Amino acid sequence: MMATRSDIVIQEVSPRDGLQIEPKWIETQDKIQLINAMSAIGFRRIEVSSFVSPRAVPSLRDAAEVFIGIERRPDTIYTALIPNHKGAELALAAGADELNFVMSASEMHNRANMNMTHERSLLSFAEIVKPARQRGVLVNGSIATAFGCPFEGLQPPEKVLNIVKRYLDLGVDGITLADTTGMANPRQVSQLVDETLNLLPSDKLTLHFHNTRGLGLVNILAAYDAGARRFDAAIGGLGGCPFAPGATGNVCTEDLVNLCDEIGLTTGLDLKRLIHVSRRLVGLIGHDVSDQIVKAGRPKDLHPIPAHLRS
Amino acid sequence: MMATRSDIVIQEVSPRDGLQIEPKWIETQDKIQLINAMSAIGFRRIEVSSFVSPRAVPSLRDAAEVFIGIERRPDTIYTALIPNHKGAELALAAGADELNFVMSASEMHNRANMNMTHERSLLSFAEIVKPARQRGVLVNGSIATAFGCPFEGLQPPEKVLNIVKRYLDLGVDGITLADTTGMANPRQVSQLVDETLNLLPSDKLTLHFHNTRGLGLVNILAAYDAGARRFDAAIGGLGGCPFAPGATGNVCTEDLVNLCDEIGLTTGLDLKRLIHVSRRLVGLIGHDVSDQIVKAGRPKDLHPIPAHLRS
Repeated sequence: MMATRSDIVIQEVSPRDGLQIEPKWIETQDKIQLINAMSAIGFRRIEVSSFVSPRAVPSLRDAAEVFIGIERRPDTIYTALIPNHKGAELALAAGADELNFVMSASEMHNRANMNMTHERSLLSFAEIVKPARQRGVLVNGSIATAFGCPFEGLQPPEKVLNIVKRYLDLGVDGITLADTTGMANPRQVSQLVDETLNLLPSDKLTLHFHNTRGLGLVNILAAYDAGARRFDAAIGGLGGCPFAPGATGNVCTEDLVNLCDEIGLTTGLDLKRLIHVSRRLVGLIGHDVSDQIVKAGRPKDLHPIPAHLRS
Repeated sequence: MMATRSDIVIQEVSPRDGLQIEPKWIETQDKIQLINAMSAIGFRRIEVSSFVSPRAVPSLRDAAEVFIGIERRPDTIYTALIPNHKGAELALAAGADELNFVMSASEMHNRANMNMTHERSLLSFAEIVKPARQRGVLVNGSIATAFGCPFEGLQPPEKVLNIVKRYLDLGVDGITLADTTGMANPRQVSQLVDETLNLLPSDKLTLHFHNTRGLGLVNILAAYDAGARRFDAAIGGLGGCPFAPGATGNVCTEDLVNLCDEIGLTTGLDLKRLIHVSRRLVGLIGHDVSDQIVKAGRPKDLHPIPAHLRS
């Protein structure tokens, strides 16, 4: 099945950003099944896993097995998140189509999360681009905490745009602006997307929002209106924030697809099939998820007329 | 305290649309305390209770006692929801500042919910306006299922606009368009608000959205962009939909205030005080609520820098 051109591209990140925070071990075979289901639904981009320290993120310690076990669709890009050179080597060996390198706009968050300064992260990234290129593997540069840091607060746009430029100078294929802990607001998103799209075309820019403060879909629409066309989302709204227990995680894929369906934006994804996969998540991870559309049904899924009113 | 002019007016509806669906009996004194807390925070409009059949909505059977027990702020309008003439008489006797009459755009929903046809509802409403006027009490006309009905589906804008006109002809002071079961989308909201504002000024129009499919804040922003300035919301996102167990209810007041604070729209409400009241809801109603901002904190509430990174 060849994916037709859609108005927006949704990258499914549940296998990585969704499952990484789950306390229960998810079997490798179950992860593979989830990814295969997403491939079958027609996602053109799937973030499969991350090659980070298994001590830091034990839930994704089977990244290589997952990459080797999944069925590949020729029109889908299977991405690996990497924090450093070592992760890149492992991801290349496992056959990732794209390396998604991540550093934080906030120096403090970068040190807390990656144990590196900005300069050290960028040096590490510079070393990764060439071997990736040689194997025909794409390289994406993610900027975590691009809209705000839980330690440092609001990040100035100039700082973020400067990292975008550094990434571009190093030969990146794409950029992701990530609202790691759900601090972004639509006014800010509109401005930063607008300024970022002066530096690269919209098909190279991804927006990654969390719904931590209920603004995930609001921010996606603001980014879309400013010209963004690629968005991360996770089925079931999986993922969360260690600073906000009980708060929601990534933007929920099926809620986003429902929004797009309702306002006439094509995604190339079938909401009914997504809901079908999402219904199995509670059994997989062992707790309720924050999707709304699965609980409420699509707006067009009507209810029977009460018996006493039927004529 | 005189309320200063704000960019948007939020009507707090938790005492009515929030509590009506709660299975646990909430003591009259607790309802009064909740409403007094909302008055103290500075809401200019509070929907206090509804005068409906105590068999249909047993949780609000103490509407009269609640109205008599609350402390009134001179700059706040205390509203009563009413479905018919009898409810209006009770609400007037209890001292409501405003009668909020409700009928559904969908004939089927009106029959299921109010046990009346449209024409019967409008006749009933016509009888209410005069006695309310004589006592200096405001009358608001709500249109439930204005964006979609769980039985009939999408409601044509012409049908909704026709009810708006009928209400206006009968001398209403304000109109509410209600997305009773969370079926609205921002494109539709934008169009219907735009057309409705051809018929009445923005300070007479209220939008009532539910977050059933995660689009509450998205729809509020779309309505705001189309010129709407008055919105219903419920602390804790209380309220729900009998057709969507587990789905979220009304737009959550504190999540809405946080959004407004972040994008620079004034509400006249203090988010910290709202969060303080919201934290007590779980104890009051006996289950978790769907607010996000209470779980996550305001974006500006930063976290301490990890000890090993402090220099």
